Amino acid sequence: MTFQVQIKVMPLNDLLDPQGKAVVGGLHNLGLTGVQDVRVGKHIILKIEAANEAAAKEVAETACKKLLANAVMEFFEIEFVK
Amino acid sequence: MTFQVQIKVMPLNDLLDPQGKAVVGGLHNLGLTGVQDVRVGKHIILKIEAANEAAAKEVAETACKKLLANAVMEFFEIEFVK
Repeated sequence: MTFQVQIKVMPLNDLLDPQGKAVVGGLHNLGLTGVQDVRVGKHIILKIEAANEAAAKEVAETACKKLLANAVMEFFEIEFVK
Repeated sequence: MTFQVQIKVMPLNDLLDPQGKAVVGGLHNLGLTGVQDVRVGKHIILKIEAANEAAAKEVAETACKKLLANAVMEFFEIEFVK
């Protein structure tokens, strides 16, 4: 079976996000002064061939830990798309 | 009121995603051969000060159209976090 998994990889909340800060500045320059804070991360969609949802989840977690997310600076969330 | 908005910016489905293809290759090299396809985009969290949800949504849409997403290559989805 093929499972579609959405992964969100974001900078840890306690860390500064320079890219987000730059986006806040850009939006203010465009006149969107209502925007107070921005954090920018990655959104990754995986198509995984696996026997069941548990196996697919394990593949997704291994992928995050080994390649997609840097645990020192980022956290990740995995969500199945039905 | 402050609204938190999550924005997903992904490459259009009809377009090739070279970053995603590179990730597929990397995951296969790590032994995760069950991963068939990967698409990589941006996940952006905005904190918006606005009078109501409709106003906040308009700010988020303007931000996407003017700065965050390139409509030629990407589509975006806006979601409110309750």
